[in-house]
Amino acid sequence: MAAALTLAKRGRGRTAANPNVGCLIIHNNRVIGRGWTQDGGRPHAEAMALQQAGTAARGATAYVTLEPCAHLSPRGAACADSLVAAGIARCVVAMQDPDPRTAGKGLALLRAAGIETTTGVLAAEAQAELRGFSKRLAGRGAELTLKLALSLDGRLAMADGRSQWITSEPARAYAHALRAESDLVLVGGGTLRADAPQLTARLPGGSAPQPLRAALTTGPVPDGFIALPSLAALDALVAERQLNRILCEGGGGLAATLLAAGRVDRLAILRAPILIGAGIGLEGLYPADLAETHGRWRLQDSRMLGPDRLDLYASSSSSNAAATRP
Amino acid sequence: MAAALTLAKRGRGRTAANPNVGCLIIHNNRVIGRGWTQDGGRPHAEAMALQQAGTAARGATAYVTLEPCAHLSPRGAACADSLVAAGIARCVVAMQDPDPRTAGKGLALLRAAGIETTTGVLAAEAQAELRGFSKRLAGRGAELTLKLALSLDGRLAMADGRSQWITSEPARAYAHALRAESDLVLVGGGTLRADAPQLTARLPGGSAPQPLRAALTTGPVPDGFIALPSLAALDALVAERQLNRILCEGGGGLAATLLAAGRVDRLAILRAPILIGAGIGLEGLYPADLAETHGRWRLQDSRMLGPDRLDLYASSSSSNAAATRP
Repeated sequence: MAAALTLAKRGRGRTAANPNVGCLIIHNNRVIGRGWTQDGGRPHAEAMALQQAGTAARGATAYVTLEPCAHLSPRGAACADSLVAAGIARCVVAMQDPDPRTAGKGLALLRAAGIETTTGVLAAEAQAELRGFSKRLAGRGAELTLKLALSLDGRLAMADGRSQWITSEPARAYAHALRAESDLVLVGGGTLRADAPQLTARLPGGSAPQPLRAALTTGPVPDGFIALPSLAALDALVAERQLNRILCEGGGGLAATLLAAGRVDRLAILRAPILIGAGIGLEGLYPADLAETHGRWRLQDSRMLGPDRLDLYASSSSSNAAATRP
Repeated sequence: MAAALTLAKRGRGRTAANPNVGCLIIHNNRVIGRGWTQDGGRPHAEAMALQQAGTAARGATAYVTLEPCAHLSPRGAACADSLVAAGIARCVVAMQDPDPRTAGKGLALLRAAGIETTTGVLAAEAQAELRGFSKRLAGRGAELTLKLALSLDGRLAMADGRSQWITSEPARAYAHALRAESDLVLVGGGTLRADAPQLTARLPGGSAPQPLRAALTTGPVPDGFIALPSLAALDALVAERQLNRILCEGGGGLAATLLAAGRVDRLAILRAPILIGAGIGLEGLYPADLAETHGRWRLQDSRMLGPDRLDLYASSSSSNAAATRP
């Protein structure tokens, strides 16, 4: 299942409105099929893995990070039906599909066909991977990751606004990967005007589908950018375009607004070993006391990117935290 | 030598004006003596290790983190003489003594007595351990460590000054250990008035000698505190009391002053996974551009203390950095 989850990550930012799913098919201890949700959402991970496996799938075990779909679509057969038709003997699933069109029907279909079916394997990890998809289906918007490039003393920029460059080339390359994993990249109006960021995912050898680009502003935006005059307009866009993953790249004002509104699911801090002193930091927020600031962020990942450090935190109040409680 | 350096650390903050040195004596692959500079500077590490070894020292190898002293003192014999008298066959030394009273004379004395003498083993580590001692002998003041307890967004306190508590109990315990390793603990006048810190080293089971306590202020100070009206007064105190290690615990104004003056050798950042937003950060500094902020701090140690992270940085321009260049 860990390998299936790794496959699922390949679909980040490329599959909306569909979830990014991974599938591994194993027979006699050999991998005979590897699949992940393809660009735009089809083929599904199971369809790709089954095609690779061919007739060898008979009697094999399929590991899928999300319950196979039970609903027919003009774009392809239901995956639960396809697994049955291929003669899969055993199916291991990480989590049930929150999509009401499947929501348990896929598992029931497999079991009714005599397939030995297990669910809940690495469920927390799968739920974290599909947090945006689940959140949107629950009517609570997309997963929002706030990326902040900071100095040791928490500055986003010098006092005059200059922020190029706080972090190193390896950290900036990671930021491009974060963009590629997102359906939408968002900045505040001030950052748009000050930095004129392209917000495109520029990866070596990459031809990744580009995320939508938006700015929270009532002012003009460059070609290719969506102007969002309010957070309500952001929500409407997420619903209309069925987006799962949003990346916010600041600035400090928008970051504080999103944090204060409890809208940040993940915090990706890229921190350079420099001191700036007086400058632009995160303004706003205004907790009543220090006690209430504690326990809100759980460290998920930490690594060095050149001289800088990435710390990835998940909100303790996000849907994932709730979902992973026993 | 690594073990001898570990012994040397036991003397941190307890041996000034003397350096904190470690000594290990080994014969036939067995440790027969372990010593470190005792409280107040005497006995020396070699004297303690030789006493443990007794007559077994004949033909043994001594590992010492600093060149054995060659100068007589009313407080004890010269260690180089003692090593010769004990019949030590081989002496491995990390670094030469910067004290002009020894400065090579100790090594010469050992060699003249026929002891096989090697120097420069783990020299960089020994120099880092004795940075304050070397710095003071070079007329450049004591080693200064700046401790900052920060939120993710670099705040030292909320906007109204409240800072109890940003960090967790394990991080605060580490801060007490930092105090115990220091000869002097220093705060700014604002912090003294706002927090009324005790600045004592409170360690479990500890009866460590307490560091001197000082505040950079022209105002009144509590009993037991030294009022330093200026950085020049700090320098005079360091020279007069022969202090090797200073710990500054803020606040933000004093921290920025020391940083801007290039007086910070080590930066100990204790960072809690909380966001404060608008609040008190490091003010001042004013670099001309971001480029000049880079390359100044090298990560020396990093570990989790409960939910918080300690990052220990050394200044690239400190005496240690210079000393460790090949």
